[in-house]
Amino acid sequence: MLGLMQDWPLLCHRILDHAARHHGAREVVTRSVEGPVHRTNYGEIRARALKVAQLLERYGIREGQRVATLAWTTWRHMEVWYGAAGIGAVYHTVNPRLFPDQITYIVNHAEDRLVFADVTFVALLEQLQDKLPCVEGFIILTDRAHMPQTSLRNAQAYEDWLAQADGDFEWAALDERAAAGMCYTSGTTGNPKGVVYTHRSNVLHAMAVNVPDMVGLSSRDRVLPAVPMFHANGWSIPFSAPLAGAALVLPGMKMDGESIYDLLENERVTFTDGVPTVWQMLLAHMGQSGKRLSHLKRIAIGGAALPPAMARTFQIDYGIDVMQAWGMTEMSPIGALCTAKPETAALDGEERVALQEKAGIAPFTVEMKITGDDGQEMPWDGTSRGNLKVRGPAVSSAYFKGAGGDILDPDGFFDTGDVATIDANGYMQISDRSKDIIKSGGEWISSIDIENLAMAHPGIREAAVIGIAHPKWDERPLLIVVPAEDRAPGKTEILEFLAGRIAKWWMPDDVVFVEEIPHTATGKIHKTVLRQQFAGYSLAP
Amino acid sequence: MLGLMQDWPLLCHRILDHAARHHGAREVVTRSVEGPVHRTNYGEIRARALKVAQLLERYGIREGQRVATLAWTTWRHMEVWYGAAGIGAVYHTVNPRLFPDQITYIVNHAEDRLVFADVTFVALLEQLQDKLPCVEGFIILTDRAHMPQTSLRNAQAYEDWLAQADGDFEWAALDERAAAGMCYTSGTTGNPKGVVYTHRSNVLHAMAVNVPDMVGLSSRDRVLPAVPMFHANGWSIPFSAPLAGAALVLPGMKMDGESIYDLLENERVTFTDGVPTVWQMLLAHMGQSGKRLSHLKRIAIGGAALPPAMARTFQIDYGIDVMQAWGMTEMSPIGALCTAKPETAALDGEERVALQEKAGIAPFTVEMKITGDDGQEMPWDGTSRGNLKVRGPAVSSAYFKGAGGDILDPDGFFDTGDVATIDANGYMQISDRSKDIIKSGGEWISSIDIENLAMAHPGIREAAVIGIAHPKWDERPLLIVVPAEDRAPGKTEILEFLAGRIAKWWMPDDVVFVEEIPHTATGKIHKTVLRQQFAGYSLAP
Repeated sequence: MLGLMQDWPLLCHRILDHAARHHGAREVVTRSVEGPVHRTNYGEIRARALKVAQLLERYGIREGQRVATLAWTTWRHMEVWYGAAGIGAVYHTVNPRLFPDQITYIVNHAEDRLVFADVTFVALLEQLQDKLPCVEGFIILTDRAHMPQTSLRNAQAYEDWLAQADGDFEWAALDERAAAGMCYTSGTTGNPKGVVYTHRSNVLHAMAVNVPDMVGLSSRDRVLPAVPMFHANGWSIPFSAPLAGAALVLPGMKMDGESIYDLLENERVTFTDGVPTVWQMLLAHMGQSGKRLSHLKRIAIGGAALPPAMARTFQIDYGIDVMQAWGMTEMSPIGALCTAKPETAALDGEERVALQEKAGIAPFTVEMKITGDDGQEMPWDGTSRGNLKVRGPAVSSAYFKGAGGDILDPDGFFDTGDVATIDANGYMQISDRSKDIIKSGGEWISSIDIENLAMAHPGIREAAVIGIAHPKWDERPLLIVVPAEDRAPGKTEILEFLAGRIAKWWMPDDVVFVEEIPHTATGKIHKTVLRQQFAGYSLAP
Repeated sequence: MLGLMQDWPLLCHRILDHAARHHGAREVVTRSVEGPVHRTNYGEIRARALKVAQLLERYGIREGQRVATLAWTTWRHMEVWYGAAGIGAVYHTVNPRLFPDQITYIVNHAEDRLVFADVTFVALLEQLQDKLPCVEGFIILTDRAHMPQTSLRNAQAYEDWLAQADGDFEWAALDERAAAGMCYTSGTTGNPKGVVYTHRSNVLHAMAVNVPDMVGLSSRDRVLPAVPMFHANGWSIPFSAPLAGAALVLPGMKMDGESIYDLLENERVTFTDGVPTVWQMLLAHMGQSGKRLSHLKRIAIGGAALPPAMARTFQIDYGIDVMQAWGMTEMSPIGALCTAKPETAALDGEERVALQEKAGIAPFTVEMKITGDDGQEMPWDGTSRGNLKVRGPAVSSAYFKGAGGDILDPDGFFDTGDVATIDANGYMQISDRSKDIIKSGGEWISSIDIENLAMAHPGIREAAVIGIAHPKWDERPLLIVVPAEDRAPGKTEILEFLAGRIAKWWMPDDVVFVEEIPHTATGKIHKTVLRQQFAGYSLAP
């Protein structure tokens, strides 16, 4: 027997409708790509998103068809997301930092009919456009005054384009399982694969992360997403902030320490999120200038492991609550956030900093399990390491066009590719990527744990650990180090620093010094390349 | 094009699974109906709910069939909810305070096959059982030691019944639109009508109200629902608390001031909710004993208008955040909560108390509009009064077996039967029930506004206002007063008290004194009965 509740599909535009109706005057502030700070609000963004929808439909974009964005985090980019999804089309965020060949592959694979791009990407697109036959035209996210001369076909300034619509338009009536957005994962091997978000997954994810034990935004928050919108659904902030009626402060393209600091402070930001690289730049700026943040209360840090020193500085020196965040493009993206439970709420000082080495607890709607290589579930005891698998309504069931084949286990769980422990309180901690973990004599050694310890040495700027084939133990760890500019420690000093801090059998068999460690387009250590570089390296038996 | 996210239906038992997995040891404390305080946790409740599910299925309860509960707010009652819903059956809460004839009607109309009842309702059910042919048996929510002698057919003690299962059972795979729960509205006219909740509506409602600007529970909260589970889905606390991993403190049957105080204080409760009557008793106890509450931070008050004096006492005298709550059985039930927005966050003292005269702001997933009698939408200006209509995934689309016919307007909105204003910030304020509003010379007079003002007079214990037919103005207000025991003001004193506080044309045409004002089973003023009592009353022209 079906119940008797209303049929009210979970559609992205209902979030914007709610924001415009209940928080219509709430500010959306952007450091525009053109330069000046721009101010608008949810009421105006909704009105303009309706124009985007009206124009896309008039142009002939049909349900399920993709439009690409190569764009920074701005109000116009948000309008394109909501406008496209609002007629059942799909916003496809393209990461402009990818290699040109990858961008070409992605746009063609997605069959994007239109590209919305910031002025900063016009030159790149001019180089690529001949290889992008599916793209019928380019809309440049600027006004006529800032529109560059361009050879891009059917190029228009966004504001001119928008002026052709009156906005007298209604959102489409859609199935909540309809595709809404798309983002390709930047895998370290093979071609990128397309994750396809649904209206339902975006809305449920935004609701699930807005509870107090997760991101928990309120209408009194002012939120600066330092995560670009082209990274993993912008960590859902373009949905969770308007759902809460929180004000938005969008950084545009300027992610340097001073620019971010100025926005955080001048715009009275209370919550922000982003990758460690951005916060490294912010902390450097604050350290040099002696400035402090008087409004910021909470900061979520994810996308790469959170260095303990960073957690310590924010938490203890600046009094800002730090939360490690963990997620994946395939998870919409938030899978865990390290917030306090009753069991951990009393932790203070260094103990609290130490808690932030964990990825955190899963929100309702994210089911987790860890399994051995035999697929058997492992206990939540804080020490058993297993392959981390997840299930939920905002987790991928497949990639676009079936790339990668069947990606779920027999129980419907998606393998994250991470190795993790989960403790009795449900705090998950990433040990390693499953392909990076070092299997030594049947036991697992976490490359990330050793890297984090090594990074705590003041003479080490960056550290990476890979497994090297070993005749007796199968694999043994090799520590690769970029020394600090002002101080280069020797091999012995580093090994002595590690001794006592890690188990004896985890000690690297060797330390090598390099000038640079390779990174992926999203800023992670590129271990595949590292392994190629050290393919010929052999350890003393 | 459908997106590529997992099919993960929103099912009630997923909430309990989450609580057991992530907050398994979190306490659920009950003042048991038998007397002593009982302690369990989400892990145990899940294990026992699985036994309920196993036994119901073994007995032959099929998907969509109803089982009734006549029960106080206890851990066993929660187990029955989750156990029944977990096989696709329907928990049907019967309000034991209804008239016996209404209970008979409801149980037969719902065709309840089994009844789960507390020992306190055995005598009542013995009287009724011959009129309840659909009920095949009664399970008494107690253990063998407390099982009363009873003539109820196929009666068993719950704990004995539960002992027959091993709990080796899996929840059913269900459509999220499947019926999960049922609650009849206690209408003031006609037969009660059945509201049928779905798994989806219960889960979405619990997620929607758990954001910071609504109920916003966290795992660090300890929650005492002073709303019985047989009232309007227990205001969703049996879903929203485990979803958050909050500890529960359940009051059982004892709602007197001392009993509630003792639980709030001894069990370190941080959040509670309930109707004004309960808080009146609590405040009386605290006033007499001089006790204070050292843990309680927030209290949601709804089900009837919040008296300003009560808001003032909690907020100013005791430093406890007060939130007016508004909802309906048909809304799962929360429709609005009066929390702070940036526009109101700075209010303090009396201004903050005054804000709590408003029902509050709607959560995401609740759409509101106010319309005139012509159906045209009215502006959100804080003064335009209109019929309040709502739409959303946890709002009724129809009543059980089609009772009441088509209940939605052409746009799919449900008419709440309330007349309300909504201000520019989205704060909704109930003016009156639409059938109680007094239409005088084409203008609307709110009976509730006059009642609230009159109640502020120290010599008035309770006040009710009804419209009396008037030859010139169609209707004019009559004020009906129960004087305070120690001080009975005269008619002139009361009218002078009101003068200047309300518009001249709102002034009651007369004041009458009575010993008692009739109430409905849920504690609201029974205006239908009042109008009958004063049917022969005529005003001087």
